[in-house]
Amino acid sequence: MSGTAQIGVTGLAVMGRNLARNFARNGFRVAVHNRTTAKTDALIEEFGGEGDFVAAHTPEEFVAALERPRRLMVMVKAGDPTDAVIREFVPLLEAGDVVIDGGNAHFEDTRRRERELREHGIHFVGVGISGGEEGALEGPSIMPGGSKESYASLGPMLERIAARAQDGTPCTTHIGPDGAGHFVKMVHNGIEYADMQLIAEAYDLLRSVAGYSPARIAETFRGWNTGRLDSYLIEITAEVLAHTDAATGKPFVDVVQDRAEQKGTGRWTVQTALDLGVPVSGIAEAVFARSLSGHADLREAARTLPGPTASVLGEAEAAAFADRVEQALYASKVVSYAQGFHQIRAGGEAYGWDIDLGGVASIWRAGCIIRAAFLDRIRAAYDSRPGLVSLLLDPRFARETGTAQDDWRAVVAEAARQGVPTPGFAAALAYYDGLRAGRLPAALTQGQRDFFGAHTYRRTDREGSFHTLWGGDRSEVPAG
Amino acid sequence: MSGTAQIGVTGLAVMGRNLARNFARNGFRVAVHNRTTAKTDALIEEFGGEGDFVAAHTPEEFVAALERPRRLMVMVKAGDPTDAVIREFVPLLEAGDVVIDGGNAHFEDTRRRERELREHGIHFVGVGISGGEEGALEGPSIMPGGSKESYASLGPMLERIAARAQDGTPCTTHIGPDGAGHFVKMVHNGIEYADMQLIAEAYDLLRSVAGYSPARIAETFRGWNTGRLDSYLIEITAEVLAHTDAATGKPFVDVVQDRAEQKGTGRWTVQTALDLGVPVSGIAEAVFARSLSGHADLREAARTLPGPTASVLGEAEAAAFADRVEQALYASKVVSYAQGFHQIRAGGEAYGWDIDLGGVASIWRAGCIIRAAFLDRIRAAYDSRPGLVSLLLDPRFARETGTAQDDWRAVVAEAARQGVPTPGFAAALAYYDGLRAGRLPAALTQGQRDFFGAHTYRRTDREGSFHTLWGGDRSEVPAG
Repeated sequence: MSGTAQIGVTGLAVMGRNLARNFARNGFRVAVHNRTTAKTDALIEEFGGEGDFVAAHTPEEFVAALERPRRLMVMVKAGDPTDAVIREFVPLLEAGDVVIDGGNAHFEDTRRRERELREHGIHFVGVGISGGEEGALEGPSIMPGGSKESYASLGPMLERIAARAQDGTPCTTHIGPDGAGHFVKMVHNGIEYADMQLIAEAYDLLRSVAGYSPARIAETFRGWNTGRLDSYLIEITAEVLAHTDAATGKPFVDVVQDRAEQKGTGRWTVQTALDLGVPVSGIAEAVFARSLSGHADLREAARTLPGPTASVLGEAEAAAFADRVEQALYASKVVSYAQGFHQIRAGGEAYGWDIDLGGVASIWRAGCIIRAAFLDRIRAAYDSRPGLVSLLLDPRFARETGTAQDDWRAVVAEAARQGVPTPGFAAALAYYDGLRAGRLPAALTQGQRDFFGAHTYRRTDREGSFHTLWGGDRSEVPAG
Repeated sequence: MSGTAQIGVTGLAVMGRNLARNFARNGFRVAVHNRTTAKTDALIEEFGGEGDFVAAHTPEEFVAALERPRRLMVMVKAGDPTDAVIREFVPLLEAGDVVIDGGNAHFEDTRRRERELREHGIHFVGVGISGGEEGALEGPSIMPGGSKESYASLGPMLERIAARAQDGTPCTTHIGPDGAGHFVKMVHNGIEYADMQLIAEAYDLLRSVAGYSPARIAETFRGWNTGRLDSYLIEITAEVLAHTDAATGKPFVDVVQDRAEQKGTGRWTVQTALDLGVPVSGIAEAVFARSLSGHADLREAARTLPGPTASVLGEAEAAAFADRVEQALYASKVVSYAQGFHQIRAGGEAYGWDIDLGGVASIWRAGCIIRAAFLDRIRAAYDSRPGLVSLLLDPRFARETGTAQDDWRAVVAEAARQGVPTPGFAAALAYYDGLRAGRLPAALTQGQRDFFGAHTYRRTDREGSFHTLWGGDRSEVPAG
């Protein structure tokens, strides 16, 4: 006898609980299960009135409660706990059932699990979910991988619980097979790191060079949030900067330790980009800036290193400088997204996922941490030119960065002179200038490699590989 | 009956052949073996007169030729071929024998192999070898890992074939257990990437901003090579830049395609640094610069992006600018080495290797690609203060970067304004300024993380972790 719950959620920590409630609030019958049954009972007691829940106290009860083919969502910690839960449930499932991993899995793990479960005829769907606890409850951005067949069964439900963009489109779509969903979620987080680092640099410049107070910077960000930078992260930056610490009466940002932590998805993004040969310098600098900030011993010892003290600008100059910082922040942001979307394109090609980049931008428009008006422009860029080789080449973005570049250059130069660290702004500008360079000094690098390692080089005027006999008469010979 | 060869080399491609010849030239009896016997015979025919070789045509003959405990060096491709050779030989070996992998293995593979062979009582020694073909023959820098016991047996032989620093010290030492040797070799290569990128940027600036010809830049580099930048890479840069292409009469560097290739050790360095939480932005930018240069489609499309054309300086200004570039190059180089040595220290701590950083600098003084007078100063820095937390804090390096910084800042600023990509110089400066910053904007990052993900933060004035109820009355509560 088959159950009647349309979806089951096992693992009822805050993310699992909120997703279960989200499904129930949207009219689905939801089976809930947790290893320690107290959490299951607490959910029913506290939120049972929100919708149609079926409490299951054992794996067998849980599986029996689900209609067939079953949809079973696993919301436990990434890594071994996820594998343990899958191992526990697989013997209870049947061909055609769908197992959904809504945790923060590495996409390579998702690829492996998809392969393993496919042998049992079970669809394994790795789903990236962004939006935190609140998003899980109110509507997150949802990035499902897995088979098309599984999306046919699961997609309509995800579309109901997902956030909606301003035009009403649900913020979920079938990203692509196997690990595509978790891959795209990973890059989302990498971009989030870069966004946050760029915002931090803008704040630092406004504080150190413009001489603005945190409250004044909050105002500045509020102003920016009405323009092209309109986004959740800019909005909450203003909130954080405007906040006063009750205990000391000081600006909140001044009582927080300046050591940024991280959970790993930014690092994964960069490591994967390195494997794919995609330069994601903006994301890398953001990850490094966080790890640098955490090396307390090193920083303590380095305080005495010589350098300038930023000299604060006068009021009129400060306002003009703030405008330049907005240009630098925007242009650097465009570069970060160009790098991130390049990585998604490269990942899609490497793994055969056929990812619709406009679709990705579309489902990031609401629900997730990097949600922003900006993403609608990215969606439009890819929708109008699906083969667009880089976001920087979209006519609108090219025009905007072109207009921004004088200010962007001035800000990077000023930061260098004044000793304010802007690794993100500088990396983004170097990437922009590297891309547009007619000739790169990489030719010299190739010459060196041929000199010390006989690694050969290509010529600009002839096909083939060549080697110069550097240790001999320096004539050129064709290579292998 | 035991053989009499003191060492055996299997895998007689150019690196293996040259190492075998190096051993033989230094008076050792060397057994040589190759899967296809023609290579073995060719070595004997061509170089048999250089020393005492024993040609072996089968694995059994090869193993029988070696004195006990045996020293067997594997010189085949990294990855599966290495595993295949190990699998082939292990059944023929005995407890106490030493298997040496002189290829470019990933240190994690070396750790695995060491563990696996230890179960058979066999010492597995991963050895990093730098210096290319010529170094292998004439004296490379050799970085052996593995047990102390194995070094007692093998070390004296390596010390004979290694390069010698100017003071006569052999360029090899026991780096540490299991994968320590391959780890240090990996970071060596990462630093090599950074060195080459910084040189490329210096060249690009001299070409685009100072308006120098390649021949003139070769002269400039020759001049630098008589000072603190004295190094193999600066020397060969001058050689490459001075070279004229015979076919066209143009500077050689202008007929080489500007797409730099890479073989993976730079990428591994960055990926490993990310796992260790060590910021190696200089190495990362170097790896990214190479991959960027290779994206022909992207670069072709991006040529039209707006930006300044560098305006060439007059003669007197150009000379002054070249001096500033030298300062920027030197200071950025100090940062790259500080980052690389930080990674070695962190790797040593993470894996329990107890690496002597002064010793590492010492054995890089000759034989390897990054050999330089500079490394003697690094050796001295660590020898005088073994607990030195960063090279930047050595009094001499701190003084030098302190003196360089005005010029360094001016060069980074000028490059930004003129549109010349200098990701390496800029990343190094941002790292320097990040380290010395009294307060980093990482405090804002922590505030944002607490806002959107309840990730908590620490305070500057009290112990513990805290969370602000951002969605509520914004009071602060102790966390977890």
